[in-house]
Amino acid sequence: MANNKALDGKTVIMRLELDTQQAQFGKAATAIEQAGGDIIAIDVIQTGKGRSTRDLTIKVSEQGTTQRISEALAELTGIRLVNISDRTFLLHLGGKITIQPKTPIQNRDDLSRVYTPEVARVCNAIHEDPSKAFNLTIKKNTVAVVSDGSAVLGLGNIGPYAAMPVMEGKAMLFKQFADVDAFPICLDTQDTEAIIAAVKALAPGFGGINLEDIAAPRCFEIEQRLQAELDIPVFHDDQHGTAVVLYAAMLNALKLTERKIEDTRFVVCGIGAAGTACTKMLLAGGAKHIIGVDREGILTRDNAYASESWQWYADHTNEERRSGGLAEALDGADVFIGVSAGGILKREYIGRMASDPIVFAMANPEPEIRPEAAEDIVAVIATGRSDYPNQINNVLCFPGIFRGALDCRASHINEAMKLAAAEAIASVITDEELSPLYIIPSVFNQRVVEEVRRRVVQAAVDSGVARRQVRD
Amino acid sequence: MANNKALDGKTVIMRLELDTQQAQFGKAATAIEQAGGDIIAIDVIQTGKGRSTRDLTIKVSEQGTTQRISEALAELTGIRLVNISDRTFLLHLGGKITIQPKTPIQNRDDLSRVYTPEVARVCNAIHEDPSKAFNLTIKKNTVAVVSDGSAVLGLGNIGPYAAMPVMEGKAMLFKQFADVDAFPICLDTQDTEAIIAAVKALAPGFGGINLEDIAAPRCFEIEQRLQAELDIPVFHDDQHGTAVVLYAAMLNALKLTERKIEDTRFVVCGIGAAGTACTKMLLAGGAKHIIGVDREGILTRDNAYASESWQWYADHTNEERRSGGLAEALDGADVFIGVSAGGILKREYIGRMASDPIVFAMANPEPEIRPEAAEDIVAVIATGRSDYPNQINNVLCFPGIFRGALDCRASHINEAMKLAAAEAIASVITDEELSPLYIIPSVFNQRVVEEVRRRVVQAAVDSGVARRQVRD
Repeated sequence: MANNKALDGKTVIMRLELDTQQAQFGKAATAIEQAGGDIIAIDVIQTGKGRSTRDLTIKVSEQGTTQRISEALAELTGIRLVNISDRTFLLHLGGKITIQPKTPIQNRDDLSRVYTPEVARVCNAIHEDPSKAFNLTIKKNTVAVVSDGSAVLGLGNIGPYAAMPVMEGKAMLFKQFADVDAFPICLDTQDTEAIIAAVKALAPGFGGINLEDIAAPRCFEIEQRLQAELDIPVFHDDQHGTAVVLYAAMLNALKLTERKIEDTRFVVCGIGAAGTACTKMLLAGGAKHIIGVDREGILTRDNAYASESWQWYADHTNEERRSGGLAEALDGADVFIGVSAGGILKREYIGRMASDPIVFAMANPEPEIRPEAAEDIVAVIATGRSDYPNQINNVLCFPGIFRGALDCRASHINEAMKLAAAEAIASVITDEELSPLYIIPSVFNQRVVEEVRRRVVQAAVDSGVARRQVRD
Repeated sequence: MANNKALDGKTVIMRLELDTQQAQFGKAATAIEQAGGDIIAIDVIQTGKGRSTRDLTIKVSEQGTTQRISEALAELTGIRLVNISDRTFLLHLGGKITIQPKTPIQNRDDLSRVYTPEVARVCNAIHEDPSKAFNLTIKKNTVAVVSDGSAVLGLGNIGPYAAMPVMEGKAMLFKQFADVDAFPICLDTQDTEAIIAAVKALAPGFGGINLEDIAAPRCFEIEQRLQAELDIPVFHDDQHGTAVVLYAAMLNALKLTERKIEDTRFVVCGIGAAGTACTKMLLAGGAKHIIGVDREGILTRDNAYASESWQWYADHTNEERRSGGLAEALDGADVFIGVSAGGILKREYIGRMASDPIVFAMANPEPEIRPEAAEDIVAVIATGRSDYPNQINNVLCFPGIFRGALDCRASHINEAMKLAAAEAIASVITDEELSPLYIIPSVFNQRVVEEVRRRVVQAAVDSGVARRQVRD
């Protein structure tokens, strides 16, 4: 059970034990409602011998409500608050995924087929031709979701144990959206070489590796090395998933404001893993004018940087060698892309941009600028949040891109496949539907995965990394 | 599809395409039966436009039958044999397990609970108190089945890809028999240190490690080191699973022949991983007279051995310093335990044993002596095979022992828990049921897992390795 502070603003479940001689349930209900709780469901768990145990599902919208309810109930005689849980924690009890046999083992005949002695024939077939592992084992449809817990959501370096709920959630999404079997692996090491060695060691059973929430700069080397040394796709979602979805939304934002990518002036704020990956996708898509800004200001080839990725960035962007801070970078810019920190983009900076500016403020949970503070002076605004329109959400990319990669047995997920995925996501919105409040589809739009899969398979075939023909 | 040779002696499924203008199905059926096949099922897959596609399930009992049927069908006009598969291979297509979300994600509210933003509260709770990982993640119920593919079944060193079907089968058994979520991890390394490092790295998400089919002597060090360096149970099933089930059967065989373990003279033939583990269980159970025999003959402390485990064995057994070969070892022995090679135990050797000898001939697939060659001169005989009575089968042990260890959150699976598991398995057979043909229950006996679990939990509590109270 979490502490009470963590439980506010949500639905909680309170288990009450009533001494039915001394207490009436109505009194408890009144006390809960007077303390600010809204009882939305009652489940009787046990009754008998003058006792009754009930679970009350209660909406608690204000800070401190749970505490007030606890105190109010404590004053009633004959009523005991056994425990408080909330729906999110209950959903996580025992973890969120399960491993199921595809067929039951009901008798000795079944047992002898799935296990010794008959399984030996299947082992032998794979031993003679290792490529059969794709057909005769779970490798065909299984992805490892691998993290070292060093950069989890906005929480930072919380380690492998605390990272598990996120990776399990990701495994659920893989299955729900794309029927991919994904298994979470949280590694008890944050050493680059040890991570590479562990992932290489466990790879035989998997058809792909989704790296997740690994801090920069180690994430770059880990991904590059694994891509080079494994023959299955390795995809760091925080970099490329974000980049693909951002690029998809950008295609539609540019269309809406009648811009060509090669003429558009981009400013990318926050040159970490995501910012670098987004920039690479823009370059791959044809962008020619990009300026990067980080804590030390505009990145320029006139400086020398200790960070290898900053040096690469400075060498490949800012062709006019502009210097200064974010305000200077934005002079005349068409597009602001923020993958940095909340509140960094001032309203007056947007005033320095070209007309019809595009603002993608993707810092989480607090964007670089809130939509309500900018919507009257921008053409389009997008964020990473689900409570505003135009959410840039990785969930739009990773299920479909891995579905496609697995289906055509791709050896890699290359630039062509990422561009294809972005175009597929953008294409789900028709010209008629396209509007400043609708440049990117919802994660629940069922056409997304199928369209991403289709175009990713085609791109894999065209670029020569597909190892299997897909019959649709 | 496997080659035809691999398919004989089993059920195969042949897909036939008939041109209904030119061919009658009856002709095909006759040809199949004349070639030695027994058609046991027909499924019509597709019909129309003068064509019909059917799957025939055919028993092929003799070597070469499949080939003969293919040739006979090739001679018929209007009938095409599209492909041949067999039920075992069909069962393995795409692997044998799947990963399922425990709850569906149907809307944004669900998504926000299992993934960002709400999952962050669960991550924080674990970050503050890592022991909560057991309750709030799959760690509570999940075991890794880890192999390096170096000693798979009787097949030997076939590597991690070919080992996967066995590990997947094991995962099915874990789920089916004990509701344990088990996931197969086949490691692409056979280096002791690299295996240890990989398993330690991936351990956070798991509540236990089942080592499987790892060759001796590396399996010893891997298990010892992991047991010392991890705080979850590590159990090499080939050693301890075999030892536990053998010891269970032995308890009943001794009871049947009215022997006390401390007075019984044991000969163990084959001093590898399983033989050593069996010997340790016998010693833990009170045995005082054990002689080990391997390729070089009886192990005796009068010799010095290069192998550490042989040296340990020689130092802890054969107190009378007997020397010679298997025949000499068996002079006056009460029990033969074979975990060596097929056919090694001659009928005349049994004649040198004490009266009412007990023979456990567990070499796979060919036992040290076939039951029909010895049953008239032994009191009890057991093997590893399912087609004779008294099968010593690991499946009797690992589901229940891990179920118990997970339920009481044991830090280790210690000797007390193994002895308890063996006693539990033995106890499932009542005194009335006990007979020379029934000293060990069937793997499908539903009382086994529950009884093993119950006694293992109790032993874990008593020996101080349980970290959670179990309410039954």
